[in-house]
Amino acid sequence: MRIFGIDPGSRRTGYGCIDTDGSRCRVVVCGAITVPARTPFSDKLTRVYDELASLLARHRPACVAIEEVFFARNASSALKLGHVRGVAMLAASKAGLPVAEYAPTEVKRAVVGYGRADKRQVQQMVALLLGLDEAPAPYDVSDALALAVCHAHTTSSPLAAVRSVGRGGVRSWRQYRPQG
Amino acid sequence: MRIFGIDPGSRRTGYGCIDTDGSRCRVVVCGAITVPARTPFSDKLTRVYDELASLLARHRPACVAIEEVFFARNASSALKLGHVRGVAMLAASKAGLPVAEYAPTEVKRAVVGYGRADKRQVQQMVALLLGLDEAPAPYDVSDALALAVCHAHTTSSPLAAVRSVGRGGVRSWRQYRPQG
Repeated sequence: MRIFGIDPGSRRTGYGCIDTDGSRCRVVVCGAITVPARTPFSDKLTRVYDELASLLARHRPACVAIEEVFFARNASSALKLGHVRGVAMLAASKAGLPVAEYAPTEVKRAVVGYGRADKRQVQQMVALLLGLDEAPAPYDVSDALALAVCHAHTTSSPLAAVRSVGRGGVRSWRQYRPQG
Repeated sequence: MRIFGIDPGSRRTGYGCIDTDGSRCRVVVCGAITVPARTPFSDKLTRVYDELASLLARHRPACVAIEEVFFARNASSALKLGHVRGVAMLAASKAGLPVAEYAPTEVKRAVVGYGRADKRQVQQMVALLLGLDEAPAPYDVSDALALAVCHAHTTSSPLAAVRSVGRGGVRSWRQYRPQG
């Protein structure tokens, strides 16, 4: 299965696409979409949307994994992040792909085994799990790959069926499958 | 000039399109995009984007006016609002339209003459200024029309040139013109 992870950010949006056979994962493509700081905001959004749409069309993943955000530093940064996350979700939805959302602690637990791991630990584990010679950088890229790995682990785990139902205190990953 | 106002909201997105000759304004179309509450969030975004894109293609305005948001009740609602606002800005940008942003107080001052007017006062003034028999409802619709009227007043005012430069303490309306 091919999984496309997206880590949206108001400055930089990381992406990481992996192939998984259920036990092993390998990187298909990864990188970050960076838009010059002085670009008008609506052009920034268009650029992120266009690049993601083009990557999804080129690499044809089966699904998209994106970070679930509960809070941000403040309402103003949440608002900005929301804009980028909105167009990222739109790009996935327009490509007809289901979107799975994971909380940062879920991603860290799946990749490092510890929900409070720091970004450097995530980066190093991602490199190890994906057999990369160099740790993927910047953190936006390693975080996007970690999201994809997290989805691979979650869907291949025997608990996946239970988790996707999301009852009985087991924290569910929420999957949005386009309608219509 | 034809102006398309958008009032994005996580539950309902109001829109209002007007024609103006510099002194008088008339409604071309107005309404609200409402998506059933249980719709998956990425489908909601797609629905808002598709409807706005279709309205912009059909009515071919010269520009889009959208509310500038500085804060929200909390980071969580700011994040949700950001998603919708992001796809609304993307729809405008994809249609090749410049996006003008106005703070709520600017809109109220332009329409009611008082920056702290309430939504009902805005609604009644919008009906009066646009020669409508009935006040446009819900507030999402009257607010979207108010944004369009605000942009009409701002661009036709002799101060428009000064304002668009936005220096010397005069609060600017920010206009984003798509690049490329």
